[in-house]
Amino acid sequence: MKSTTIKQVTVVGTGVIGNGWIARFLAKGYDVIATDPAEGAEVRIRSSIANAWPALEKQGLAEGASKDRLTFEPDLANAVANADLIQENVPEREELKRKVLADIDRLAKPDAIIASSTSGLKPSTLQADCAKPERVIVAHPFNPVYLVPLVELVGGEATTTETIKTAEEFYQSIDMKPLVISTEIEGHVADRLMEAIWREALHLVNDGVATTEEVDAAIIYGPGLRWALMGPFLTLHLAGGEQGMKHMLEQFGPALKLPWTKLVAPELTEELTNKVVDGCEQQTTGHSITQLEQRRDDFLIELMQLLEKYWPGANLNGKI
Amino acid sequence: MKSTTIKQVTVVGTGVIGNGWIARFLAKGYDVIATDPAEGAEVRIRSSIANAWPALEKQGLAEGASKDRLTFEPDLANAVANADLIQENVPEREELKRKVLADIDRLAKPDAIIASSTSGLKPSTLQADCAKPERVIVAHPFNPVYLVPLVELVGGEATTTETIKTAEEFYQSIDMKPLVISTEIEGHVADRLMEAIWREALHLVNDGVATTEEVDAAIIYGPGLRWALMGPFLTLHLAGGEQGMKHMLEQFGPALKLPWTKLVAPELTEELTNKVVDGCEQQTTGHSITQLEQRRDDFLIELMQLLEKYWPGANLNGKI
Repeated sequence: MKSTTIKQVTVVGTGVIGNGWIARFLAKGYDVIATDPAEGAEVRIRSSIANAWPALEKQGLAEGASKDRLTFEPDLANAVANADLIQENVPEREELKRKVLADIDRLAKPDAIIASSTSGLKPSTLQADCAKPERVIVAHPFNPVYLVPLVELVGGEATTTETIKTAEEFYQSIDMKPLVISTEIEGHVADRLMEAIWREALHLVNDGVATTEEVDAAIIYGPGLRWALMGPFLTLHLAGGEQGMKHMLEQFGPALKLPWTKLVAPELTEELTNKVVDGCEQQTTGHSITQLEQRRDDFLIELMQLLEKYWPGANLNGKI
Repeated sequence: MKSTTIKQVTVVGTGVIGNGWIARFLAKGYDVIATDPAEGAEVRIRSSIANAWPALEKQGLAEGASKDRLTFEPDLANAVANADLIQENVPEREELKRKVLADIDRLAKPDAIIASSTSGLKPSTLQADCAKPERVIVAHPFNPVYLVPLVELVGGEATTTETIKTAEEFYQSIDMKPLVISTEIEGHVADRLMEAIWREALHLVNDGVATTEEVDAAIIYGPGLRWALMGPFLTLHLAGGEQGMKHMLEQFGPALKLPWTKLVAPELTEELTNKVVDGCEQQTTGHSITQLEQRRDDFLIELMQLLEKYWPGANLNGKI
């Protein structure tokens, strides 16, 4: 169902992420204005949308959705003048983002929502130079933006609850799964987790323990299979047998002190233990570990049938 | 196709991992002997196999495979006497594992393969007290062992190439994806990556940034969707636009210095940059970024259709 408050959307900055947003907005039936000062931007945008479109058609377009409902507008003032929501995706440099957001804030309608796709910067920092910072929010998506549903929503000190609520409803209306994060930290939540794995992967390659292909294999044939279904907590909850996370944390006490990974582990205090165990129990209220295991197994079987078509060597005449 | 050299398999230690191995071996048509000194072990093993069996039936059993081809044998000497491969899964304590492996080594046939499921310990350490250490190897699986195909194979200083080769063929024959790791480190490869994400997740909960449920949501609706198809390297290769990993590393240079995650990042030297870029290019030889993107998109669409049945709230009358 389309948002009642957001009717016209403008995308500022059109790299991989900006173009992903354009494709998603178009597929959900919006009129989209795109702006980017780079030479040849319009050609690159239209080619990127053309690449994404077959996937979006397979997934099912909203009524009236069309690639042709995209307008390229080189002038920022014209591009944002009538927008109800502006999605900013300029390169990840604080100074640049602050400047562009302040420009948008000055040029946009006073009640327009201004959302930044920043993967790392805090909203309080980004909204600092805006005259109306209460409508500035972080809305951080994941590649490919036109398919992956997660969007992290983070308000800054000046952001109103109403802005967060309107944004949440809007992103839900375009079939996303907004995760509202109440504490501002660099990298929000998902990118901190991805960064952790990414840095450890770089260490493994740097130390000559594994090639990039081996690191990737160690994910896709193992832990990666489960992560579309269960995050790190639920995964371990199910690895602990009938006692679940409680047992895992008892086992983990000593293991966390081992020099696995180059990441410093937090002290496993009683408070942290309780937070984690209670969290997992809340997530699974009313379901036995056996029920959860059977659900996981049913999923894994279907997933692996699906992956037969996609894993390395399965298609494209060779390895991926 | 069944292994020609491995005919009888014995599983020593029957927690979640040991029972997972028993279920996989049985489903692939092996006679299995299980041993465990714990009170009531046999009852727990048979109940665990009964839980796993419906999934294995759905996946398809090998000819002649049966739950009834499991024999419980309380005496270790009798249990390992005729085994061609012994899979050890006792608790993750170095002293205990070394003792049990030395006992198995003393009691088993001289040419039997002895494989330890250790998730963290190095094979050179584990084989130190064995009289015939050349046939001792790490074969580290992932939960649920009866479905997830990854198994990390690591030889110690004394392990022969022949042992590694025989083990590799055996695990392949039971439909696994062996990853042979030539450098011994604590946690091998996959668990180092999982540990990194796990520790960061604990920090997020500890610092009050997110609940366990929010951390899990930040994975399953976003990055987790891609990890069944692409590891961390290929994922970033595709996030970098037409320039792929090369572009990502240029962008990442500064970001790696930011205090995201509590993990210390390696210096992005020219050597490391080359290793990573070359690795990604080798993995994708002959395929354009656009082809890779279309393959990824096709996968994601099918995966999300599948996940509609499994994601939180979709079944089991409530959230998971």
